[in-house]
Amino acid sequence: MTCLLPAPTHSCIMKQTTERNNSVISALHSPLPTFSKETNHIKFDILAKDHGTRARRGRLHLNHGTVETPVFMPVGTQGTVKAMSQEELADMGFQIILGNTYHLYLRPGHELIRSVGDLHKFINWRGNILTDSGGFQVFSLEHIRKIGEDGVVFRSYVDGSYHEFTPERVMEIQSALGTDIVMAFDECAPYPCTEDYAREAMVRTHEWAKRSLDSHDPNQAFFGIIQGSVYPELRRQSAQFIASLDTDGIAIGGVSVGEGKELMMNAVDWSVPHLPEHKPRYLMGVGTPEDIIDSVVRGIDMFDCVLPTRLGRNGSLYTSQGRINIKNNKFIDDFSPVDPECDCWCCRNYSAAYLRHLYKCDEILASRLATYHNLYFYRTLMIRIREAIEQNRLTEYRKEFLAKYRRHRASVHDEIPRQDLSRDGAQKKTLSME
Amino acid sequence: MTCLLPAPTHSCIMKQTTERNNSVISALHSPLPTFSKETNHIKFDILAKDHGTRARRGRLHLNHGTVETPVFMPVGTQGTVKAMSQEELADMGFQIILGNTYHLYLRPGHELIRSVGDLHKFINWRGNILTDSGGFQVFSLEHIRKIGEDGVVFRSYVDGSYHEFTPERVMEIQSALGTDIVMAFDECAPYPCTEDYAREAMVRTHEWAKRSLDSHDPNQAFFGIIQGSVYPELRRQSAQFIASLDTDGIAIGGVSVGEGKELMMNAVDWSVPHLPEHKPRYLMGVGTPEDIIDSVVRGIDMFDCVLPTRLGRNGSLYTSQGRINIKNNKFIDDFSPVDPECDCWCCRNYSAAYLRHLYKCDEILASRLATYHNLYFYRTLMIRIREAIEQNRLTEYRKEFLAKYRRHRASVHDEIPRQDLSRDGAQKKTLSME
Repeated sequence: MTCLLPAPTHSCIMKQTTERNNSVISALHSPLPTFSKETNHIKFDILAKDHGTRARRGRLHLNHGTVETPVFMPVGTQGTVKAMSQEELADMGFQIILGNTYHLYLRPGHELIRSVGDLHKFINWRGNILTDSGGFQVFSLEHIRKIGEDGVVFRSYVDGSYHEFTPERVMEIQSALGTDIVMAFDECAPYPCTEDYAREAMVRTHEWAKRSLDSHDPNQAFFGIIQGSVYPELRRQSAQFIASLDTDGIAIGGVSVGEGKELMMNAVDWSVPHLPEHKPRYLMGVGTPEDIIDSVVRGIDMFDCVLPTRLGRNGSLYTSQGRINIKNNKFIDDFSPVDPECDCWCCRNYSAAYLRHLYKCDEILASRLATYHNLYFYRTLMIRIREAIEQNRLTEYRKEFLAKYRRHRASVHDEIPRQDLSRDGAQKKTLSME
Repeated sequence: MTCLLPAPTHSCIMKQTTERNNSVISALHSPLPTFSKETNHIKFDILAKDHGTRARRGRLHLNHGTVETPVFMPVGTQGTVKAMSQEELADMGFQIILGNTYHLYLRPGHELIRSVGDLHKFINWRGNILTDSGGFQVFSLEHIRKIGEDGVVFRSYVDGSYHEFTPERVMEIQSALGTDIVMAFDECAPYPCTEDYAREAMVRTHEWAKRSLDSHDPNQAFFGIIQGSVYPELRRQSAQFIASLDTDGIAIGGVSVGEGKELMMNAVDWSVPHLPEHKPRYLMGVGTPEDIIDSVVRGIDMFDCVLPTRLGRNGSLYTSQGRINIKNNKFIDDFSPVDPECDCWCCRNYSAAYLRHLYKCDEILASRLATYHNLYFYRTLMIRIREAIEQNRLTEYRKEFLAKYRRHRASVHDEIPRQDLSRDGAQKKTLSME
């Protein structure tokens, strides 16, 4: 088969870097010395630091262009961010999205994707892609057959067939996908779990991290993953071990699995002090707008979460004054935008009443508008966070944002069950849903 | 509630008419005298006729701008053309869409829509809207309680509540919706039905047509509907009766209810000779690309059908070489566009293999891309038909189109069950689906 689609445009990284550096640096209150991690396929510049917190304003240079950090990465599990087109994601300004190795391996298969070039070509996305290693999904499945030192044998949720994931195999699959950032194969311990089990899973994760690092495609940026569950000593050990490896970035995993906000923030606080300044830090599967601000404050640079897309499809929309349930009767005759302060496609063109009607009728446009709006909310939040760091006023911005966001909580907020905060695949019933 | 949405732009009809007339007329092989039906809210110009057939190339001037005919009108039953945004419909060049009185009356309710202005404002569609009268839906429901001379009592499919539709009530609802073309309340006889029942339904339809005409909002263009089932004498009587009324346009109803292509074309052939030249003619609920060309040839100007949207959601896509089932294994590694001759958003950016993958994963983007592509196919077909009439070569174009469209029928076509060709609401199980 010949590919008749246009080839993706590979950004000229050097040119973009120079131009954008100038504009950003000129906006900074006091330019700081740049910390930098650089290889052929990744470069991470820290452009500014917030004085009152651990927050950093950075820029990642990857194979498919730059990524401004702190960044939120929409989740495109099966090669599509649910309900969105690639054009809409680019229009919103997203520079990186997630794909999932486990799902793409099972369907359509990494060899098919390799045959057309890579995942970018297959889905026609010209920005960057990070792929999860599949560890999270494999360990949250019912049909694990065997966990061994070498890897995991599991059954496909699509057709029941048997498959084995080892660190080497997962690196090979991610190489075929040709994504820009690949993740080490890890074991994400469930919550709750005993300290003994958490230690065992951590030790395995460390062994697999070394094997993943050794076997990963050198054309891809490689991130290690810290585990250790809710145990401070394990988190410290894991952070120190992963930090000792020659990775391009470091992720904190094993969070957002139902442990609650306080324990999640503890996991960050126990890990970050042991991490090198010059590598990007990624908190996997997090989170709510509040979780994100609170983690940026703690020194995190990268986030992904299914919340904005999944909640959008269920009729829950983020606004500057809190999250609302658009199906509520109060919106029947509300002909104003979902969020009068929002300038997204949804809010510029459609009313809350129309959106409610679309939900009541199970119309596809409902999911489209709400997903767009929610992703735009996250995008705007990240822009504001980056500006606040540049202006050395993140603490102030956090207070302003939360005061407004929580103002009407009592009337319009419905609590998010903690399990809904989890990463893709944590709940078996929604495994194929995001 | 205050409406914070921008007011729709009302096109300047006179300006558009002058400009476009010049460009189209200059392209015609031999400008013909213009036949015209004109009131305050509708004007129909026949710009050219095809010499070898009954086809007309026309232009409708309505409250929300001009509509080039022959035209295909996408179906937006519940105030949304399934999976599309209003922006996408406008980008494709659609100048008129359908809404359904029955569905919008039940949900969200016509009074709510009246309170924000009209249906255009509620859904933010700046083009024209035609509303079906609801007769088709009411008569295809199980829970009709009583058909009388005055109207029909029925139960809501949403909540089981009782409602009554009379001609006057249906005109009042359509007035509240503020659409550009309203349809008379009619009884669509099922297929098959006896000649006696068909006559009874036709007589009732004629009586209701007069009452609808008398009570319709004079700011809306009004179309009568011909019935008569598959009986030539009844079709003749109905055509002559409806033609005798002072309507703005005439529809042929009671087709596309499972009677098959031959009887459908008969209904057109039995009706058209009795219709005045100067009024637009609308064949309700039709149809396939082949049905549309064959009906244009017979003198029809307007069409609507759920096929391109419904089939699109089911993975069936129109191409210049016939309709294909994208879920077929042959597309697994087909990285070319769905139709290499198509220049739509889907075909310019995404491959058949990616689309197949999205279908296999039940992803929303699958429905979006396929619906866009199928509507674009219909849009392009209508443009080519209009050009062919202007160039006096519709018979030739029909042959060329069909030769190509049917070439690979054996390998790629799956037959459409006739019941799937029916209008929205003919099948109870899909009543809320389109």
